[in-house]
Amino acid sequence: MNVAIVGASGAVGQEFLRVLDEQNFPVDELRLFGSSRSAGKHVQWRDRDIVIEELQDNDAFKGVDIAFVSAGASVSKQYADTITRHGALMIDNSSAFRMDEDVPLVVPEVNGMDAFNTPRRIIANPNCTTIQMVVALNAIHKVSPIKRVHVATYQAASGAGASGMYELEQQMKQIANDEEPTVQKFVSQLAYNVIPHIDVFTDNGYTKEEMKMYNETKKIMHAPHLDVSATCVRVPVLRAHSEAVWAETEEPISLERARQAFEEEDGIVLMDRCEANGYPMPLHIANLDPVYVGRVRKDLSNPNGLSFWVVADQIKKGAALNAVQIAQFMLNHSK
Amino acid sequence: MNVAIVGASGAVGQEFLRVLDEQNFPVDELRLFGSSRSAGKHVQWRDRDIVIEELQDNDAFKGVDIAFVSAGASVSKQYADTITRHGALMIDNSSAFRMDEDVPLVVPEVNGMDAFNTPRRIIANPNCTTIQMVVALNAIHKVSPIKRVHVATYQAASGAGASGMYELEQQMKQIANDEEPTVQKFVSQLAYNVIPHIDVFTDNGYTKEEMKMYNETKKIMHAPHLDVSATCVRVPVLRAHSEAVWAETEEPISLERARQAFEEEDGIVLMDRCEANGYPMPLHIANLDPVYVGRVRKDLSNPNGLSFWVVADQIKKGAALNAVQIAQFMLNHSK
Repeated sequence: MNVAIVGASGAVGQEFLRVLDEQNFPVDELRLFGSSRSAGKHVQWRDRDIVIEELQDNDAFKGVDIAFVSAGASVSKQYADTITRHGALMIDNSSAFRMDEDVPLVVPEVNGMDAFNTPRRIIANPNCTTIQMVVALNAIHKVSPIKRVHVATYQAASGAGASGMYELEQQMKQIANDEEPTVQKFVSQLAYNVIPHIDVFTDNGYTKEEMKMYNETKKIMHAPHLDVSATCVRVPVLRAHSEAVWAETEEPISLERARQAFEEEDGIVLMDRCEANGYPMPLHIANLDPVYVGRVRKDLSNPNGLSFWVVADQIKKGAALNAVQIAQFMLNHSK
Repeated sequence: MNVAIVGASGAVGQEFLRVLDEQNFPVDELRLFGSSRSAGKHVQWRDRDIVIEELQDNDAFKGVDIAFVSAGASVSKQYADTITRHGALMIDNSSAFRMDEDVPLVVPEVNGMDAFNTPRRIIANPNCTTIQMVVALNAIHKVSPIKRVHVATYQAASGAGASGMYELEQQMKQIANDEEPTVQKFVSQLAYNVIPHIDVFTDNGYTKEEMKMYNETKKIMHAPHLDVSATCVRVPVLRAHSEAVWAETEEPISLERARQAFEEEDGIVLMDRCEANGYPMPLHIANLDPVYVGRVRKDLSNPNGLSFWVVADQIKKGAALNAVQIAQFMLNHSK
């Protein structure tokens, strides 16, 4: 396969390079694209030396089979035609096309077959918080359909890109040195704080990040009546998002059945021991591939409810890995 | 009033000294008690120099009117008789007596009158996470009874005492200096992490901290059928707990009515603007008295549901301040 990465110098772009290597993705030619600022930089990948090309409206994508795109929604919108014009499949990490009816929104474990319906040659990668949640929800949904979900998130600084992670690290150092912490990327100091505000506010008082979880979950799970109420919170963690989830199902599900469902689900590691460190935590899950589920309990306020805790690396399964898995799924299922 | 503080050198004990002063509590004599390790230390309070006495089974509490006790459940159990024997009222911050039928569990804004029913001369101060939640819930409960609650917490290091706060600060410094972080107080490194495990596990998979929210809420609110399902999580914040709450009421409540209810409620500051920093955050709420409520929204998954965000200083309203407010309530209502 001839592969392109657009946004090659960003946090997710860098992760694409690692994931393509780790997954042994069948790469013939690898092309890297970026802004005029990144263009010309050299990147080492396997034994290759690759120069980042400037993304422009030209015929550079001729011959590219798959383009993994992670350069923000406005870049995706502006260059979608450039990228797909000569037949390349664009797997887009931004929110630009996610809710478009003629663009599939895909988490391979949940709705991999949707990836084959691409009239625009575009597949959207869901938001990081949604991906890890729907992988977990899907295990339960197969036992009894889920009617509603409450979720509170604990989102890492790197969800705002490499610069978010850098700002948190800087603040930690500044505090340790009795200096005033620099606040630029986030609306408030993140070190020693939690910020219940990710992306912009919408008219109903929810943030866009929270509404992504509401809208994207319905589309991915083909469940228009599955309603998600989310509170999305930034926490001083570098990498990996955590989520406290409550799911109400049509029929009650026993704890044993729920644990079994998680255990049997592709892409999930059940880590659920009632003892110190017997549950997933972001510090230990960073850089790992699977979605980790723990703290599985009956919802004490609802006989048809379950409560559990979901942790995953949002740059891996929440972004680059999921996009590469979409491509792998298509390769495996198109023979 | 002759006042005693038991556990005077702990995080909450120190806060009692500040709160009694800030609240202009009518203190005639102030006596301080501690372990043999603390005994003999001098403490400055207002213009007084007070020596910490060793807590022993003797008649030292003769003449004391109110004893604020915060030295852990086992100390409370062991010395309850010593403290109350001569008529002192014991306001106990530990979990020792909270669920005893003949001990009231009091949050003045919610059930202040319960404080007058003290056959054992003991009043229990609820758990910090419960106090700030029930103050917020009570505002809604008066509009329409609450049937169930889901809550995910973001709890500060100081909830584990001064040593918890110290450990987090140490870890921040160690990381800034490229040293290995010391882990003693918490089960795992807290800096750059979140830990979904506070207090010990119980048989149903919930932790004791989570079950306190379940049991104590029913007792304080006189609502045996109000069920709370909680996920309690430690986050790298020094002071002030945050909570993402969903409450389902018998009748639907409009957003406007909910906001009005919070605004009118004693002890609550509504801080609910859909803009950067227009909501409470623990970094800014630390050391303040009120319970702050923000992010008020309709629950998108339930027409009878509301979602909101509650932040309070858990050493103040969550511990010392609430205990002193119990005493103030009794003084104001016994004339």
